[in-house]
Amino acid sequence: MKVLIIGGGGMVGRKLALEIAANGLNGRTPSELILFDMGHPEWTGAGAPELAVGELHAPGEAQRLAARRADVIFLLAAVVSGDAEADFDKGWDINGRATWTLIEALRREHLDSGGGYRPRLVFTSSIAVFGGPYPDRIGDEFLTSPQTSYGATKVLGELLVQDHSRKGFMDGISIRLPTICVRPGKANLAASSFFSGIIREPLNGLEAVLPVADTVRHWHASPRSAVGFLIHAAGLDLDRLEGRRALNMPGVSCTVAEQIESLRRAAGNDAVALIKPRPDETVARIVEGWPRDFAPERATSLGFAAESNFDEIVGIYIREDLDPAKRP
Amino acid sequence: MKVLIIGGGGMVGRKLALEIAANGLNGRTPSELILFDMGHPEWTGAGAPELAVGELHAPGEAQRLAARRADVIFLLAAVVSGDAEADFDKGWDINGRATWTLIEALRREHLDSGGGYRPRLVFTSSIAVFGGPYPDRIGDEFLTSPQTSYGATKVLGELLVQDHSRKGFMDGISIRLPTICVRPGKANLAASSFFSGIIREPLNGLEAVLPVADTVRHWHASPRSAVGFLIHAAGLDLDRLEGRRALNMPGVSCTVAEQIESLRRAAGNDAVALIKPRPDETVARIVEGWPRDFAPERATSLGFAAESNFDEIVGIYIREDLDPAKRP
Repeated sequence: MKVLIIGGGGMVGRKLALEIAANGLNGRTPSELILFDMGHPEWTGAGAPELAVGELHAPGEAQRLAARRADVIFLLAAVVSGDAEADFDKGWDINGRATWTLIEALRREHLDSGGGYRPRLVFTSSIAVFGGPYPDRIGDEFLTSPQTSYGATKVLGELLVQDHSRKGFMDGISIRLPTICVRPGKANLAASSFFSGIIREPLNGLEAVLPVADTVRHWHASPRSAVGFLIHAAGLDLDRLEGRRALNMPGVSCTVAEQIESLRRAAGNDAVALIKPRPDETVARIVEGWPRDFAPERATSLGFAAESNFDEIVGIYIREDLDPAKRP
Repeated sequence: MKVLIIGGGGMVGRKLALEIAANGLNGRTPSELILFDMGHPEWTGAGAPELAVGELHAPGEAQRLAARRADVIFLLAAVVSGDAEADFDKGWDINGRATWTLIEALRREHLDSGGGYRPRLVFTSSIAVFGGPYPDRIGDEFLTSPQTSYGATKVLGELLVQDHSRKGFMDGISIRLPTICVRPGKANLAASSFFSGIIREPLNGLEAVLPVADTVRHWHASPRSAVGFLIHAAGLDLDRLEGRRALNMPGVSCTVAEQIESLRRAAGNDAVALIKPRPDETVARIVEGWPRDFAPERATSLGFAAESNFDEIVGIYIREDLDPAKRP
């Protein structure tokens, strides 16, 4: 079994690779593990995966990757939401056209193989496919009406995965990730970055800016859950999706105030005091358009699982990503 | 006001052009009316519209059309569903890529004009964006999960219209047409073609094949309603869409048996006797996946209107499209 992770140098991609290298993929040990990204941090895990460097949207790159004929392909690479909003062409070219080019190239491999090559493609979509107004809890049959280019290109990826799978060119699934929290490392250009920042920075002894009111409710899952979703999606019998190949993933719905109380329980008042409210109307307006809560019944019934409260999410960051010397 | 109808040689496009040429567009008389299609029937209406010939997906064609800087653009051209299923590349290239190329070219004109050019684009989407299982009536917040390439590319068009409009490059709307019935002329490659055939052929003294059970329920509107939707969409204040720029159009939900009773009331038992049941499992399976009924509350509240029963739909065909010599 050959496994390819496109975006394997990113935060979730690297964690996924470490997990597969350590424990295999749904009980099987890959014969090859290929990580593709614009760059890679030093490999510190088991085995010696191939660390391929390139840009998916560069001419010929998607075709070269498809020609590797991986049995399982995780597509995680994307321009993040804030970046895609700032640069319209970049967002549509990389998240939209490059995804299409890759999926087309995989179809070409399928056809060239006489139909024998039919990869499992796990496409990481996002709750950014939705747009308000929302019901209290978003069900599995709620419309997609994206209010960002990032969200629109994620729907495009879902459409391509579904139609190519329906035709038998591949066997694909799109999983709509909650906001991944707590992200280790630095803040990124995603407008959701502060949801991680207000937990991560105080645990590292740093100040964190809170640009929205603490009444804001949002939908979260840990990086570990994201890895779990991806692995589960890679092994699932996709006939069970009955033709609807995009799935809302489970997560934890909580307010910023509840997030802060989780931090307080884990690290005390001094940590909480490092959170500095600094209202930012631009961020507040973007976040106001985001989903607050879901009822992800299909995913749950198919065996996808996330944390059950935000305390667990904070605990996972502390155990898995925080410098042990800084543990509260 | 310059008006461009892409697909202006087709059945609905031609009726739209005749209506605009005769009565203007929402109270205004276009200074130019351009009909673009692969070919045109002889013009029999008022005025002298430009009958431009070409293929939207031909290199440079979308850019040339965009450079006309029409104030109102109707995008009706498409490969029909059956054709797009039979030829995967053709469906995605023409319905998908060519639509994207046109919308990109319109954005280029917007940017080149310093932002002054911002056309009204009316994109004809379809109820093929949906996939079952369905509720008894499909509401305005029901998910899109297309089960044909035709439906998938219609969602892509909707995404592009919405994101380009959100950014202010155009002011666009996607209207999801019911199955248009009764279509004049010959049967086409759409799997829905028989819904018109069982009314049209008997009224013309010809036998018609019925490939499905008469219990099949479906969602219809007349060509006249389709023209009405397009004209209304061209004049609507689209801020009222509040960012959700794809709308389910109103229509008539009825069974094939009810369609047949309408024919009987209009033309008698001899006409009905010309309908020959010839079950076709392929067609039946496709049609089984189609929507049966809608609750199009947003469109109705925005002033879109269709027929209220199938008798009216039959009557419109008889008055507007049937050879007067054949009137029952």
